[in-house]
Amino acid sequence: QTLRIAVVRGDGVGPEVVDASLPAIVAAAAVDGVAVVLTELDWGGDRQIRTGRAMPDDALDVVRRHDAILFGAIGHPDLDPAESVWSLVLPLRKGLELYANLRPVVGWEGLSTPARDGAKVDFLVVRENTEGEYSGIGGRTHRGTPLEVATEVAIHSRPAIERIARCGFGHARERGQTLTLATKSNVNRHGYGLWDEVVFAIGEREFPDVALEKMYVDALATRMVARPESLGVVLCGNLFGDILSDLGAPFAGGLGMAPSANVAPDLDVPGFFEPVHGSAPDIAGRGIANPLATVLSGAMLLRENGCPRGADALERAVAATVAEGSARTRDLGGVATTGEAGAAVLAALGDA
Amino acid sequence: QTLRIAVVRGDGVGPEVVDASLPAIVAAAAVDGVAVVLTELDWGGDRQIRTGRAMPDDALDVVRRHDAILFGAIGHPDLDPAESVWSLVLPLRKGLELYANLRPVVGWEGLSTPARDGAKVDFLVVRENTEGEYSGIGGRTHRGTPLEVATEVAIHSRPAIERIARCGFGHARERGQTLTLATKSNVNRHGYGLWDEVVFAIGEREFPDVALEKMYVDALATRMVARPESLGVVLCGNLFGDILSDLGAPFAGGLGMAPSANVAPDLDVPGFFEPVHGSAPDIAGRGIANPLATVLSGAMLLRENGCPRGADALERAVAATVAEGSARTRDLGGVATTGEAGAAVLAALGDA
Ligand SMILES: CC(C)[C@H](C(=O)O)[C@@H](O)C(=O)O
Ligand SMILES: CC(C)[C@H](C(=O)O)[C@@H](O)C(=O)O
Repeated sequence: QTLRIAVVRGDGVGPEVVDASLPAIVAAAAVDGVAVVLTELDWGGDRQIRTGRAMPDDALDVVRRHDAILFGAIGHPDLDPAESVWSLVLPLRKGLELYANLRPVVGWEGLSTPARDGAKVDFLVVRENTEGEYSGIGGRTHRGTPLEVATEVAIHSRPAIERIARCGFGHARERGQTLTLATKSNVNRHGYGLWDEVVFAIGEREFPDVALEKMYVDALATRMVARPESLGVVLCGNLFGDILSDLGAPFAGGLGMAPSANVAPDLDVPGFFEPVHGSAPDIAGRGIANPLATVLSGAMLLRENGCPRGADALERAVAATVAEGSARTRDLGGVATTGEAGAAVLAALGDA
Repeated sequence: QTLRIAVVRGDGVGPEVVDASLPAIVAAAAVDGVAVVLTELDWGGDRQIRTGRAMPDDALDVVRRHDAILFGAIGHPDLDPAESVWSLVLPLRKGLELYANLRPVVGWEGLSTPARDGAKVDFLVVRENTEGEYSGIGGRTHRGTPLEVATEVAIHSRPAIERIARCGFGHARERGQTLTLATKSNVNRHGYGLWDEVVFAIGEREFPDVALEKMYVDALATRMVARPESLGVVLCGNLFGDILSDLGAPFAGGLGMAPSANVAPDLDVPGFFEPVHGSAPDIAGRGIANPLATVLSGAMLLRENGCPRGADALERAVAATVAEGSARTRDLGGVATTGEAGAAVLAALGDA
C-alpha cells in the first residue's frame, strides 16, 4: 500500500518545519504498513517571484493525483500578503472544495498554558472553509478621495452550512462531546440567522443524540479563555474559525503546537494539512521554529488516509518528547533546534 | 454644576446592576462638585412587549437633552435577540454617531485571571462603532429552498476609519503606549486593505510620535491570550472590537469587570456607557450579578463629563473593595450580593 503525499514547503519557516517533520511522518505510516511516496512541489513565494505565479495553472490537477498535501507556511517578506494567500492557500482550499477545516486544541503534559491548573483542554474547532467572509467579493470606490468606501460581502449558503454542520455533528458524536455553534446572529441576522436555522434543523432531524448549544462568538471568546476545558466541538463560519483557532492555540502551548486539516468528507479529493502558524519571517532560516504543529498535522493526514495506528503513535511520540523535553524548541521553553525536535519525535516513535 | 444622566436600565440583570451602581456614581460626581440629575427611561424589552417599540420615536431627541446615557443590558428572553439589539443598542450607537467604543482591560489586585503571575495587564480596545460588519446590509434569497443564500455586506468608509484612527492614536499618545492595528487585510483586501492604508497614512502625517504596529486579528488573538501585558491600545473595526473586548475580559476578572464607553470625540452628543456583558437572563432577579462593570462604566461617564476626580475616586474604591473582598460577587469568588457590592464601593468612596 502506498500513500502519495504532495509536499508544499512554502515560505519562511515552512521548509524547515516540513523537513524536520517528514521523517517521523513517513516512519509513522510504516506502522500501518504503508509506504509513503513524496512529491516535492516548489510552490510559494519564491516561485511567484521567479515566474510570476505561486503555483502552476494545472495545480489542482497535480494535487488531485495525490492522496494528501502537506503544507508548510505561506507569506514571503517581498510579496504582498493578500496576493500570496489568494494565489496559494485559498485557491487550494476552495478549488478542491475542502470545506471542513479541523483544528484540534489539546493540552500537553509538561507545557504551561493560560488554562487553570489541572484543567484538561481537549476541543476541536470545525470551521467552514469555502465561503462566508472569505468569499473574495467586494471592492473600493472613490479611490483616494475623502469619499472612499470599501465593501466586503460575506456569502453564507444553505448547502455549505449543511455540509459543515454534518461534519461538526459527526465529530461531536464521535467524541461524545457537546456541539457549540458560534455565530453572531443578533447582529448579522441574514448570514448567521441562516446558520442558526440550518444547524438546529439538522441537529433535530439527523443528530438528535448530540447535545447542541448556541453562543455568540464574543461570549464564546470569553468562555474559551476562562473555561477552555468546558468546550467540546465548536462549529463556526470561516472568519470566526480563523480567530477562534488562534485564540485556542495558547491552551495547546502556542501556535507551535496547533495543527490543522482541510478536508472534504465524502468528496474524493486530497486533504490539505498545515500548521495553523504562518511563515514567521522573523525567525525563518535560524533552525529554531517548532516543527510539532507540522508533525501533528502529519498525524491528522495519516488518520484521514488509512494510517490510524501511525497517527496515534506519532501523537504519543510528541506527547512523550514534549513531556520529557527533548522535542521542546525555544517557544516551549526548551533548547531543541527544529531538526532536533523532529529527530526526537522520530526516535521516540519506536517506543510509542 | 449639574450632570444630566439618562438612565436606561434595560433587560435581565440590567436593572439590578444599574440600581446597585447609581448611588456610588452620584456620590463620585459630588467629589468634583457636580450634582447629578437622573432621568429614568423605561426603554427595553418590557416596553417592546407592552407597546411594540423598545424606545419611543423621539428617542434620539430625548437623549440629546442629556449629557450622558447610563445603560444596563439588552436581551429579553421572550424577544428575538436580533430584533432587540437592532431596536435599541445599535440605533443609539449609530443614531448618535457614537463612533468610538472604548473598552479598557485592566488587571485588578486580588483577582485571579489567566494572565501569567505578575503580568500587569492594562490595555484599551478602541473599536469603530458605526459601520463595518454592523452595517445591517444583507439579505436572504431562495428562502427555505436547498439553494438558499444569505449575504452580509460590510461597509468600511475612509471618513469613518479616519475619525476612529485619530481617536486610537490620541489614546495611545496619552497613555504612552503602542497602537496595535488589528485587521484581516490578507483576506478582506478591500475593507481591511483600506483600513491599513488610512491608519498608516494618518500615523505618518499626524502622529509620527506614536509607535504603530499592524497585526492580523487571528495572530492578535493568540497574543492577547498568551501575552496580554504586551498590549497598549488596540485599534480595530466593529466586529473585531466586539470579539477582542470579550476575549480580553477574563484578564480583568471576567465580564463582570468589563466597562465600556460609546463616545463621539468632537461631536456634541451624549455618550452611552454600558457594561460589556449582556442581560444574563439565567441569573436575572437573583441579586447575584456583578455591578462593577456598570460602576466602572460610570467612572468612564464621569471622566468624559468633567468629573475626573470623581472618576478616579470611583476606580480606587472599586480597586480597594475588590482587593479586600467586600465588593466581590460570586463570579469574583466572593459572597457579596449585587446590592452589597455597590454599597461597599459607595462606602469606600470616602476613603478613596
Ligand atoms: C493565511 C490565512 C489566509 C489563513 C486564514 O485566514 O485562513 C490563516 O490565518 C489560517 O488560519 O490558516
Ligand atoms: C448586544 C450586541 C449588539 C453588542 C455588540 O455586538 O456590539 C454586544 O455584544 C457588545 O459588545 O456591546
